Amino acid sequence: MLARFLCWMSVVAAAALAPVARAEDGYDLWLRYRPVEAARSTDIAARTTGIVTSGDSPTLAIAVAELQRGVEGMTGRQIAPLSALRPGALVLATPRTGTAMPIDTGRLGDEGYAIRSTQMSGAPVTLIAANSDRGLLYGVYHWLRLAQGGAALDRIDLRSAPRIGLRLLNHWDNLDGTVERGYAGMSIWDWWRLPDYKGPRYADYARANASLGINGTVLNNVNAKAESLTPAYIAKAAALAHVFRPYGIRVYLSVRWTAPMELDGLKTADPLDPQVAAWWKAKADEIYRAIPDFGGFLVKANSEGQPGPQDYKRTHADGANMLAAAVKPHGGIVMWRAFVYQHDNPEDRAKQAYSDFKPLDGQFADNVMVQVKNGAIDFQPREPFHPLFGAMPRTPLMMEFQITKEYLGQSTHLTYLGPLFEEVLKADTFAKGRGSTVAKVIDGSLDGHRLTGIAGVANIGVDRDWSGSIFNQADWYAFGRMAWNPDLPAEAVAREWAALAFSPDPRIVDPVVAMMMGSREAAVDYMTPLGLSHVMATGHHYGPGPWVSDLARPEWNPVYYHKADASGIGFDRTASGSDAVAQYAPQVAKMLANPKTAPERDLLWFHHLPWSYRLKSGESLWDGMVHRYDRGVAYVEDMQRTWDSLRPLIDPERFAQTQAFLRIQRREAQWWRDASIAYFQSVNRLPLPAGSAKPAHDLDWYKAQSFPFAPGHW
Amino acid sequence: MLARFLCWMSVVAAAALAPVARAEDGYDLWLRYRPVEAARSTDIAARTTGIVTSGDSPTLAIAVAELQRGVEGMTGRQIAPLSALRPGALVLATPRTGTAMPIDTGRLGDEGYAIRSTQMSGAPVTLIAANSDRGLLYGVYHWLRLAQGGAALDRIDLRSAPRIGLRLLNHWDNLDGTVERGYAGMSIWDWWRLPDYKGPRYADYARANASLGINGTVLNNVNAKAESLTPAYIAKAAALAHVFRPYGIRVYLSVRWTAPMELDGLKTADPLDPQVAAWWKAKADEIYRAIPDFGGFLVKANSEGQPGPQDYKRTHADGANMLAAAVKPHGGIVMWRAFVYQHDNPEDRAKQAYSDFKPLDGQFADNVMVQVKNGAIDFQPREPFHPLFGAMPRTPLMMEFQITKEYLGQSTHLTYLGPLFEEVLKADTFAKGRGSTVAKVIDGSLDGHRLTGIAGVANIGVDRDWSGSIFNQADWYAFGRMAWNPDLPAEAVAREWAALAFSPDPRIVDPVVAMMMGSREAAVDYMTPLGLSHVMATGHHYGPGPWVSDLARPEWNPVYYHKADASGIGFDRTASGSDAVAQYAPQVAKMLANPKTAPERDLLWFHHLPWSYRLKSGESLWDGMVHRYDRGVAYVEDMQRTWDSLRPLIDPERFAQTQAFLRIQRREAQWWRDASIAYFQSVNRLPLPAGSAKPAHDLDWYKAQSFPFAPGHW
Repeated sequence: MLARFLCWMSVVAAAALAPVARAEDGYDLWLRYRPVEAARSTDIAARTTGIVTSGDSPTLAIAVAELQRGVEGMTGRQIAPLSALRPGALVLATPRTGTAMPIDTGRLGDEGYAIRSTQMSGAPVTLIAANSDRGLLYGVYHWLRLAQGGAALDRIDLRSAPRIGLRLLNHWDNLDGTVERGYAGMSIWDWWRLPDYKGPRYADYARANASLGINGTVLNNVNAKAESLTPAYIAKAAALAHVFRPYGIRVYLSVRWTAPMELDGLKTADPLDPQVAAWWKAKADEIYRAIPDFGGFLVKANSEGQPGPQDYKRTHADGANMLAAAVKPHGGIVMWRAFVYQHDNPEDRAKQAYSDFKPLDGQFADNVMVQVKNGAIDFQPREPFHPLFGAMPRTPLMMEFQITKEYLGQSTHLTYLGPLFEEVLKADTFAKGRGSTVAKVIDGSLDGHRLTGIAGVANIGVDRDWSGSIFNQADWYAFGRMAWNPDLPAEAVAREWAALAFSPDPRIVDPVVAMMMGSREAAVDYMTPLGLSHVMATGHHYGPGPWVSDLARPEWNPVYYHKADASGIGFDRTASGSDAVAQYAPQVAKMLANPKTAPERDLLWFHHLPWSYRLKSGESLWDGMVHRYDRGVAYVEDMQRTWDSLRPLIDPERFAQTQAFLRIQRREAQWWRDASIAYFQSVNRLPLPAGSAKPAHDLDWYKAQSFPFAPGHW
Repeated sequence: MLARFLCWMSVVAAAALAPVARAEDGYDLWLRYRPVEAARSTDIAARTTGIVTSGDSPTLAIAVAELQRGVEGMTGRQIAPLSALRPGALVLATPRTGTAMPIDTGRLGDEGYAIRSTQMSGAPVTLIAANSDRGLLYGVYHWLRLAQGGAALDRIDLRSAPRIGLRLLNHWDNLDGTVERGYAGMSIWDWWRLPDYKGPRYADYARANASLGINGTVLNNVNAKAESLTPAYIAKAAALAHVFRPYGIRVYLSVRWTAPMELDGLKTADPLDPQVAAWWKAKADEIYRAIPDFGGFLVKANSEGQPGPQDYKRTHADGANMLAAAVKPHGGIVMWRAFVYQHDNPEDRAKQAYSDFKPLDGQFADNVMVQVKNGAIDFQPREPFHPLFGAMPRTPLMMEFQITKEYLGQSTHLTYLGPLFEEVLKADTFAKGRGSTVAKVIDGSLDGHRLTGIAGVANIGVDRDWSGSIFNQADWYAFGRMAWNPDLPAEAVAREWAALAFSPDPRIVDPVVAMMMGSREAAVDYMTPLGLSHVMATGHHYGPGPWVSDLARPEWNPVYYHKADASGIGFDRTASGSDAVAQYAPQVAKMLANPKTAPERDLLWFHHLPWSYRLKSGESLWDGMVHRYDRGVAYVEDMQRTWDSLRPLIDPERFAQTQAFLRIQRREAQWWRDASIAYFQSVNRLPLPAGSAKPAHDLDWYKAQSFPFAPGHW
């Protein structure tokens, strides 16, 4: 009998190892603090012989705990608070803690910090200095980024202060727990069990954001429910604010314009009605009693069915200013979205926001910001920068990016958004001549605004990895880092992230960054090459639908945007068409108006051109389109190969997830390419260029695809 | 300056400890394997010097890995596979692995196991023996339960085999990720990214279920969508089946009766139409090609708006048998739900299932089971056992329990369901004389059925703790354990669970079990005392609504159930009323028909009685009702005190969660009590008994409460 027991199987032995390893489930984001190799551990240990500071704020406690957590994670060593300086100590200091700091904190502002390898009382130390505990916290995260990322720790000398004042996430989270355009599971706000139950995820959320310098969060969807302003929900928001406060994060609320009518039976929501203004004033007072540092309101009004001041023949400024007056005594602000288009307005949708808002420049109260999406349509894979940037010099404009990838592959496609952010921020408005970049508009430097802001529509949900995939975390990371410093190159941010998310090992960082950097352009290629836009399927926006032409409003239909017919394709936004180009500064308008000078990447956004139009490469527009579709698909295949080659270096859980998602992306890139080609070929009847394969199915097959349970469509 | 650094704060020191501890976030359920004290560790080590087995099935690999994980967690020691016996070894053996086993596995069946401390080849070992690797896996979980639970490990001699063949979870999970009556977040099935992405949670789910002996799972809501039978969704189900298979878990699907019409344009869903039968046969063949061990179909037909065979003037048996023929060649079964009531049927709702199904006894194919809820209405805090139990001797009846607490406090109330399960299982149907318990009906012993089953509507979601609260995990646990052995006392199961979930320390187990054991009765007291039922608010079923009388169908209104008026309260189900008592066996019917012999806990279920009716205690019915409401609230207060006293012994995360939820439960118990009393007082105009406090608000206040975002109502 015993002989029968002798055969032992490798499968059992392999399974036995699994429980020992700590699973990389993505929950730790870029704050993983995994053990480093011995030499590096010794190096870190030499710079962390103890922590010296003073004060008793919760923020400082968080900073110290984070240092201890980080160093213990990386080195296995617990570091203790010190009561006196010692060589190798980490010193956290503000002007309030002492006067002998060898750093001038004068220009660091309230949130900046400096980190320096220096001597204090004869001992070599690492000094993190700031004017506030919040600045120290940000400095601590920076130091930990260096430590995790493999940077030298013995000769640090850096200063950093945020260029933009308000760095906010916008949650499109509904009170029933769903998330509009959320692809990472339900909302992390457990509204139902708040305020009683404050689960651990709230602090973890705040910690992750603080590590990037994000300092505010709008809790609820811009398609807001009035109920978010009831006492019960204010108490819930206050409970979250309480958790977030020591992390330097303020809460904001989206408001529904007709809340006074819905909640308290007012007969009107006219912003000039004294009762309406009084209602909002009382509501603001009520909120500030519960949340003394409440940030303010975000408003989507007169847009996509939302009510607003125009329903009462008032302007956006009338509406914004009335709300602004309500929060002003408390130091609050109003963020008024410029994402508007009217169902009865025949004007090119891309022009309507400008037409509505540009005339209001100078009419907004000084605690109002106008929040403008990066482009004039709606977060497409690529859009030219929004013409309002640079066009409203007397109004502080906030940038609104979409971190959640409604149009860029949703939860599964690897399409790093850093390059999109960078492209927009670096775009030159020429509003005050060359160099008037969008970044300078929103950081206030171009027009001298002190109130500045940037918002990202969050990609966060209850999925264990927060963002639906490991690589989607990079978009959250990039948004935060570039909100702090809009000049950071997307590639540098990708390198930072990859080092933190995986390892500083260049065998990982180099290929991962290479994958990331071209990935958004690949999505543009396989979805909307050469300036196409808004060709996705209806409602859920999952997959291609360039043939859709039967929706009630013209500007909901993809055919409105691409205008393909037998003779050509593209939206003529020159003077012979909608003349949207005229909304840009003259130098920009002139450049865009000519297809030969307009960037080819935006060609069909501004021009309707014959299929035979010659691209710069010499090939026809049609051939160039097809080649771009092919190139996009090929890029995904390249990413698959790269990722497969990384198997030995990546933990199994994250390797498997990314591998599975790339497989989905490959399939869907092909679907986008094939469906688009099948449709446009049905219009232009042109052959495919040599070497390009026929679509796998006929057009009817693509049209017949239906996805009743596609996510994010609440 | 240095002096300024000297003040060090306790808050920082406390925060510093947090990251080191492994957070008890509930994910590990009852499989925590936390370190045990030194003496116990030595004891366990002495019984786990190695593992001896043979074979290479994935199931066996899981069993061995689980042992290694458990022992390493408890003792820190890694245990190795052995190639020869050694004193203290754990031996896993089936008849196939050898012949000299000192255990007769003859009567253990395919899933049973024996565990014995014995000698093999002269060495003292612990032998786990079974007829299959699945039996070994169950045995391993049992041994680990003993080890974790603090049991003696040196003199084990036990045998265990399941009494019920099919032990299933029913997921009311929708394809869009929502969960009907789910209070633990969205569905754990990531339908959208299946089959490509199989996240780690699926295996963890299977492991948790296997540890309880659960051997099947119905993946989708009984309110089914036809799309779950499309090729795309069959592939997704197959991917899950692939993960679950080595854990001994089969998948089943709920089906929509009209799927042939919706998916393939058939003109009818008449079960006697040959085209319909052919469609289902082809569909079954298609499913079995993808999932060779597919379990079968669950059907909700002609109930609450679902289509079914009665739409074609066919019977439930006609429908079930047609489906049964489709799956029969593959060994599949059909579970046909008896939860039916008709919108146009004036008969007492409690009678309709019996009226529909009793006449069909003997007409069902031999691979059909009729799945019957524990009571005749709908998972109320208490219902008398369903009169179908014992009434259909020629039909195998499955029990359907609801683990998710739609009517028992949803995600937050601590209302341990073990006593409810036990009460139903022990109820005596008298179908074949005294001792004809419900347990004997469903385990097949009463009527000689070989096909036997029990289902629990799952309380599982993506919440990190799976079930929405730590204590809700106990309901999943209790369902699984009592499905394996329906004679297990609820208290013994509670003790087991508490020891595994927290610690075997009696300072924890005793008070926790005491809290649990009275908690369901407390909910009955503060919600539906003395046999009341169905008095909850409409739709979401959150909170009280005894006043509701305006819903379209009479049997949707609470007033239909309590029939309170100035003279009395209760539903007369005796011969003078609906005569529902006549659906029970004569001995039971006679006992129930007389308010003096009917159990007082079911009094108003069967009887309409004057408010002045004398209870056994001597007090009036009204005073007794109020005292029970008071008692329910007081019990929750007692639980709060008990839990607060456990603070030093419980980890902070789970302590805080339970404390917060008890606070919610206390508030809501008071609300239930006050709203109910305010309403019934408005009907009977009677004073409260001495010592009972007036409701906090007037009736209109309670009626005005509105909860548009209450969870679980999809």
